[in-house]
Amino acid sequence: MSLLVVGSIALDSVKTPFGERDEILGGSATYFSISASFFTKVSLVAVVGTDFPKKHIELFKKRGLDLDGLEFEKGKTFRWKGNYAYDLNNPNTIYTKLNVFKDFYPAVPVEYKKIPYLFLANIDPHLQLLVLKKVYSPRLVACDSMNFWIQNELKALKRLLKKIGLFVLNDSEAKLISGESNLIKAAKYIFSLGPKRIIIKRGDSGAIFFTDSNKFFCAPAYLIQGIKDPTGAGDTFAGGLMGYLSKSNDLSESGFRKAIIYGTIMASFCVQDFGPNKLLKLKLFDIKRRFTEYKRVTSF
Amino acid sequence: MSLLVVGSIALDSVKTPFGERDEILGGSATYFSISASFFTKVSLVAVVGTDFPKKHIELFKKRGLDLDGLEFEKGKTFRWKGNYAYDLNNPNTIYTKLNVFKDFYPAVPVEYKKIPYLFLANIDPHLQLLVLKKVYSPRLVACDSMNFWIQNELKALKRLLKKIGLFVLNDSEAKLISGESNLIKAAKYIFSLGPKRIIIKRGDSGAIFFTDSNKFFCAPAYLIQGIKDPTGAGDTFAGGLMGYLSKSNDLSESGFRKAIIYGTIMASFCVQDFGPNKLLKLKLFDIKRRFTEYKRVTSF
Repeated sequence: MSLLVVGSIALDSVKTPFGERDEILGGSATYFSISASFFTKVSLVAVVGTDFPKKHIELFKKRGLDLDGLEFEKGKTFRWKGNYAYDLNNPNTIYTKLNVFKDFYPAVPVEYKKIPYLFLANIDPHLQLLVLKKVYSPRLVACDSMNFWIQNELKALKRLLKKIGLFVLNDSEAKLISGESNLIKAAKYIFSLGPKRIIIKRGDSGAIFFTDSNKFFCAPAYLIQGIKDPTGAGDTFAGGLMGYLSKSNDLSESGFRKAIIYGTIMASFCVQDFGPNKLLKLKLFDIKRRFTEYKRVTSF
Repeated sequence: MSLLVVGSIALDSVKTPFGERDEILGGSATYFSISASFFTKVSLVAVVGTDFPKKHIELFKKRGLDLDGLEFEKGKTFRWKGNYAYDLNNPNTIYTKLNVFKDFYPAVPVEYKKIPYLFLANIDPHLQLLVLKKVYSPRLVACDSMNFWIQNELKALKRLLKKIGLFVLNDSEAKLISGESNLIKAAKYIFSLGPKRIIIKRGDSGAIFFTDSNKFFCAPAYLIQGIKDPTGAGDTFAGGLMGYLSKSNDLSESGFRKAIIYGTIMASFCVQDFGPNKLLKLKLFDIKRRFTEYKRVTSF
């Protein structure tokens, strides 16, 4: 089954203890779609400026993305610059220049409206709601968010969460939205806002999938030696997860668990190089091999 | 097979966001032996002062501990006081009063010298070396340590690690001793110091077992809602681990993996109440049930 994503495409400038890159391909929709494209057909709703390098468009095409929903607006592409310290946790943002993304009003092409799997990447919850209005009851709607929207657009975010099948967020966001430092308690609160399932991402501590505040699945991260750049790991996780779900069309507990492992594995590849570089070099074989390896290092 | 532990017995005063307790039973050897006693016969080498409450001795006896190696010295028992913030990570130590522990010179009763499993809990590495000299080549020697010894007695610690079958330490200690922020790289360095196997404990992010810097096993923590006091969780983990290994006498990869899960589960009980309270209320049935539950929440 096919998969629709709405999110950002950016040019990122990133500095980590392991190197520095200027104006490389980035954005939530970018990481998500490249990751998901290993599993299923992905359609993209996003915006770039007229300065967006053609080579990136070629690269999207090479990954088989449907770009009918990609808009080219006069002006500059969204830009982000950030630095990471040794712990590689939250980056220190140097600047965020929204540029054409500032007036982004997602148009959903008619042929996209029946797509059964929808991912609303981290953008203004008003826009996430808008997209949701335009599509015909997808089989699974998942969304991400971030601290900024929790702090500034909580009302819209709460309206959105009522309609969500899977809410993917990280641990600091879960603590912020719930006011609880314990993740089980945080999940309990978040369920009260409406989403049917929750995944709390914990960076190199793995992910927890909740179907109920008493029913969860814990997946450790895949341990990696040569981490170069954590940017996009969360969106890559979501891409692997939603890509695998779209392919299998299996929304059972065991289907979700497998999908979470595929998400975990895609994220582990992502951090091994700057931007989506490592993802772009992958073969399906590499992914399957790491899945087997993951099973080996976690089973008892 | 039986198990010998050398470590501290203390009276702890603890404050967490969930309550406060004064002068409750604590110490590395205490948590370790109570935890291990659910699996095997545990012999204790430690020291207490003449002020040590008799009720605690009764409690040790109730858990079947062999106390021939427990010394009663004139003076006060070792005391520790600490506060935890909401994140429940490293406590803020208010005081450490070594008291009789200051001149602790562990004597190993003759009948203990042949015990095949030995755990050298976190004490001065000179004392750990001394105990190791006194015993007759145990089947497995495991040890713990802490930042203080890494910073102040590194030479002795390095001498000790050459003779160790299993080194159990937490992630901040692994980073400190190796100077590496990546845990695989940290393990690689620690292996160069001599230990045959390494377990890096990561608190609520679980544990990693290394048999080689390229061969590891990842175990997530067991997710707990009502955490009251994390004191002793690491020693309780080690107790469950070594207790299970002594019982099974299975030092294969799969034997270690199971032992690590039992350690994880014992630690998850420990944090549910102040001091070793929850551990003392357990039945073997509770432990087995949580093992099954752990399997359910981690398998895919």
